[in-house]
Amino acid sequence: MKKMGILGPRGTHSEAAACYLNGVLETPCEMVEYGEIFEALAAVSEGEVETALVPVENSLEGAVNITLDMLARSDDLQVLRELIWPVHNQLMAKPGMRDIRRIFSHPQPISQCRAYLREHCPEAELVKVSSTARAAELVAGEPAGSGWAAICTARAGEINGLVPLAAEIQDNMANCTRFFLVGRRSDQPSFAGADKVLIICQIDGKRAGSLCEVLEEFAGRRVNMTRIESRPARTELGEYIFFFDLDTDVEEKVLLESIDAVKRKCIWLRNLGAFPVLRAGD
Amino acid sequence: MKKMGILGPRGTHSEAAACYLNGVLETPCEMVEYGEIFEALAAVSEGEVETALVPVENSLEGAVNITLDMLARSDDLQVLRELIWPVHNQLMAKPGMRDIRRIFSHPQPISQCRAYLREHCPEAELVKVSSTARAAELVAGEPAGSGWAAICTARAGEINGLVPLAAEIQDNMANCTRFFLVGRRSDQPSFAGADKVLIICQIDGKRAGSLCEVLEEFAGRRVNMTRIESRPARTELGEYIFFFDLDTDVEEKVLLESIDAVKRKCIWLRNLGAFPVLRAGD
Repeated sequence: MKKMGILGPRGTHSEAAACYLNGVLETPCEMVEYGEIFEALAAVSEGEVETALVPVENSLEGAVNITLDMLARSDDLQVLRELIWPVHNQLMAKPGMRDIRRIFSHPQPISQCRAYLREHCPEAELVKVSSTARAAELVAGEPAGSGWAAICTARAGEINGLVPLAAEIQDNMANCTRFFLVGRRSDQPSFAGADKVLIICQIDGKRAGSLCEVLEEFAGRRVNMTRIESRPARTELGEYIFFFDLDTDVEEKVLLESIDAVKRKCIWLRNLGAFPVLRAGD
Repeated sequence: MKKMGILGPRGTHSEAAACYLNGVLETPCEMVEYGEIFEALAAVSEGEVETALVPVENSLEGAVNITLDMLARSDDLQVLRELIWPVHNQLMAKPGMRDIRRIFSHPQPISQCRAYLREHCPEAELVKVSSTARAAELVAGEPAGSGWAAICTARAGEINGLVPLAAEIQDNMANCTRFFLVGRRSDQPSFAGADKVLIICQIDGKRAGSLCEVLEEFAGRRVNMTRIESRPARTELGEYIFFFDLDTDVEEKVLLESIDAVKRKCIWLRNLGAFPVLRAGD
């Protein structure tokens, strides 16, 4: 049975997304929990697991930098699939809890729920912990009278015997997280059945208009770039690596041509994979 | 005396940069410490302080998202000045410490020193705390035999009676942090003496080539864009706000024309200021 690295513990958004994906894959995988994104991706490089599911972007909080940086720096990884996962945050506590004094969660949900927290719990102390599941665990370990609550998934709350105080407390109901299923690089990513191509390249930042010239190669061929993200090249301030998400809704020949043309205008370029995009039902 | 909000406590990179800047300003300010970036910027909006110095980008770790998000969402703030600050990370401990077991620091320096830590301290547990100065304080509070060390500035180490175990342990010697001195918005940012203009806008992401069209307005007029950064628009997945840093080394008339032309192609656009860039000597 193949193995898929996922982010634990039980009850996190990442684990819930992984369970969903595993249920729709042709052959389900054995799931192996890791505590950190870089550990899960390193496990793919080292052959400990065949694939890993890791978050890459949230619609409110933006890019997950460690995922982008690991993809940029590992030349043996490739994106096999994208999963768009709707995020539902609940405020949960022990039955009978009144007067919230401390709220525990991961830093991302805390900032995703800023408006709600400011309005409804302005006096509560916000405590950042390693995961939403860990937050639920901590709250479960204290008596109801302590005034502790957690922002977590409904599932993490249930596992830990918590009850909801408020549901859907995120600032925005369109709150989604994109995940990448990452595997080891094969010789040539196939475009069959792909919705998207991910390209990564370094552009000479010292020359005026260099990014514009690259984008013209896509726009001139009607290749739709759905996302651009930059990360430091780590050489010097002002030098960047760019990630481009490209739609595959043009002819494959045209798409490949545009990538080749861009490659000639870059310091280096890597095709990180052509893959289907799956949107999980609510 | 005017007040400048800074990030404390004493001994952080932010505080050191603020001391340097205060020394070169025409009229030095009284410095007011805040624990979080959003508190320092909110204090400017609310008139508690005239200005605040906050980090916006590190050459290894990338953008400081909270600074970008606060600038995007507050229409009463403006960038007055940029400071480029070289970062020197030291590994410090109590005199006589042997066998490092735990290393404390802020998450940014921990990731800036990844390669060093992997090579020299692979067994040490890495503990993330709120600032480099706090890390030094924690280490100072334990006996040398505990095996605790901190990644911090030389200044934070000295304040807390620590000695260096290793100097300049960051992965890259070109490690710099950019800071913005932010003030309340005046009617019309003046271009006199400015090196850079910061523009923020939302582009219709649903239309293929829309970003390219915007960049062409700059490139076609030889306006050099030195940086592009995207952040989620927080409306839905796939909608972004863009930050453009523009060089002022073209005629002011041409620069203003390009910004006007871009404005017509955007959902909205704001000029976040025209400002001089100062590079601190090592």
